[in-house]
Amino acid sequence: MTRMTERAMSPDEIVALMRADFPSWDQSGVKIEEAEYRACRLRLSYHDRFLRAGGTISGPVMFMLADTALFVAVIASVGPKSLSVTTNMSINFFRKPAPKDLIAECRLLKLGKRLAVGDITLFSDEETEPVAHATGTYSIPA
Amino acid sequence: MTRMTERAMSPDEIVALMRADFPSWDQSGVKIEEAEYRACRLRLSYHDRFLRAGGTISGPVMFMLADTALFVAVIASVGPKSLSVTTNMSINFFRKPAPKDLIAECRLLKLGKRLAVGDITLFSDEETEPVAHATGTYSIPA
Amino acid sequence: MTRMTERAMSPDEIVALMRADFPSWDQSGVKIEEAEYRACRLRLSYHDRFLRAGGTISGPVMFMLADTALFVAVIASVGPKSLSVTTNMSINFFRKPAPKDLIAECRLLKLGKRLAVGDITLFSDEETEPVAHATGTYSIPA
Amino acid sequence: MTRMTERAMSPDEIVALMRADFPSWDQSGVKIEEAEYRACRLRLSYHDRFLRAGGTISGPVMFMLADTALFVAVIASVGPKSLSVTTNMSINFFRKPAPKDLIAECRLLKLGKRLAVGDITLFSDEETEPVAHATGTYSIPA
Repeated sequence: MTRMTERAMSPDEIVALMRADFPSWDQSGVKIEEAEYRACRLRLSYHDRFLRAGGTISGPVMFMLADTALFVAVIASVGPKSLSVTTNMSINFFRKPAPKDLIAECRLLKLGKRLAVGDITLFSDEETEPVAHATGTYSIPA
Repeated sequence: MTRMTERAMSPDEIVALMRADFPSWDQSGVKIEEAEYRACRLRLSYHDRFLRAGGTISGPVMFMLADTALFVAVIASVGPKSLSVTTNMSINFFRKPAPKDLIAECRLLKLGKRLAVGDITLFSDEETEPVAHATGTYSIPA
Repeated sequence: MTRMTERAMSPDEIVALMRADFPSWDQSGVKIEEAEYRACRLRLSYHDRFLRAGGTISGPVMFMLADTALFVAVIASVGPKSLSVTTNMSINFFRKPAPKDLIAECRLLKLGKRLAVGDITLFSDEETEPVAHATGTYSIPA
Repeated sequence: MTRMTERAMSPDEIVALMRADFPSWDQSGVKIEEAEYRACRLRLSYHDRFLRAGGTISGPVMFMLADTALFVAVIASVGPKSLSVTTNMSINFFRKPAPKDLIAECRLLKLGKRLAVGDITLFSDEETEPVAHATGTYSIPA
């Protein structure tokens, strides 16, 4: 029995799926920079609507980006299972991100048949210290 | 030395602060139904833009509601500290919410000078089994 | 179709299972004070070996008690599935517990066929402010 | 202003501190294989007392190892602050570890003056797929 170690969907294929299944995709500001087997990198283009008090990008926006990154890493690995759902996400916020693009780097720590677990590190564009880190679980439908 | 056990801000005062400090508040769909010392209840009025694939309210929308509830419970207890920031939030999603209002019930488990920890249970309107549960920490500025 | 709302095992039955399947049970110091459908209360009898620097009960000891409480609440609800395993546990520590008994109160927030999620609040004996709070998920075998 | 990027304590110095402040250290089975600025690697020597039902190492034992690794990474970076305490730890269990040594690899994601956040990946000795992953926060005393 062979073990698949190549990605199941390319970034373009994933974007097509997101547009079809998530009507708000084009307004989200999210771009898929890379998508591989068990990993991806996303970019969130900065927009003023992401701000909260203090001039910083809000926590829910960072959560959205982390959750999307984990979803993209899962379907890049297992194919177009758009009914995969998050069952748990734990996120730590380290510092207030500047008003600029956010980068999410995701890797899958476990990829089982029913559950995938990954972590996501968020950076402000061109910076090296992360602004947030999340760990999450997706339930993959049969 | 007395220990304060009364709320520091009423729902109306909190709404005024949210409008001033979070420009997107009026578009958020969030209403404060109750706010007491160490507890609150919020309602998110249903809107189609909250949906994701599968006809269910998306995880980031539920995270936003949980995070807002914890913020409201904190400032209801300690006063107008709108620079309080989430340092950690862990959320578990139990079932797909129907396309209707969401209710968030929050209580503070710990209220220290610098840190507050609370949990938030999310329900679909008029249902008794929760759709999600979160636990989070806010860092309170001096 | 009826929905079971009665417990599947009594405290005595659970203790018998713990003794059979977890050889260290009798040395653990844990007692089951109550076990109901979707809830339980445990007591950890204080012992000096639980201490860490600062004269306080160590975090891993509190984790053990929380994890055991969730396990007991699950099997009290679904019967003797001793191969149920924790998939996730998130714990917040609020204050340093005094060197006395710890109480764990657990309730299940979700009880599905394959997954159960619950939260656990830990108290020092006869105190009202919790020392820690945890949320965890158990995977239940078929 | 210079930024310290060298470790504050060597493995031998950390072991001496652990022996002084944590009386159960020598019985814990934990060895410090490496300790650097913002990172460490520990080994837990296998012992039958770590087993739970199913012949696998128990969750609380893995939690203890993860928590210890984060503590070691913190004091390796900031010096002998043995009153540092965990405020939050979230752990995901991926597979049942075989009855053999466990390895913990820890890195600090944030190192502030008051808070440090790190993640810990646990492996069975000589295996490449992790058995568990945790993220935790330590509060560092002034």
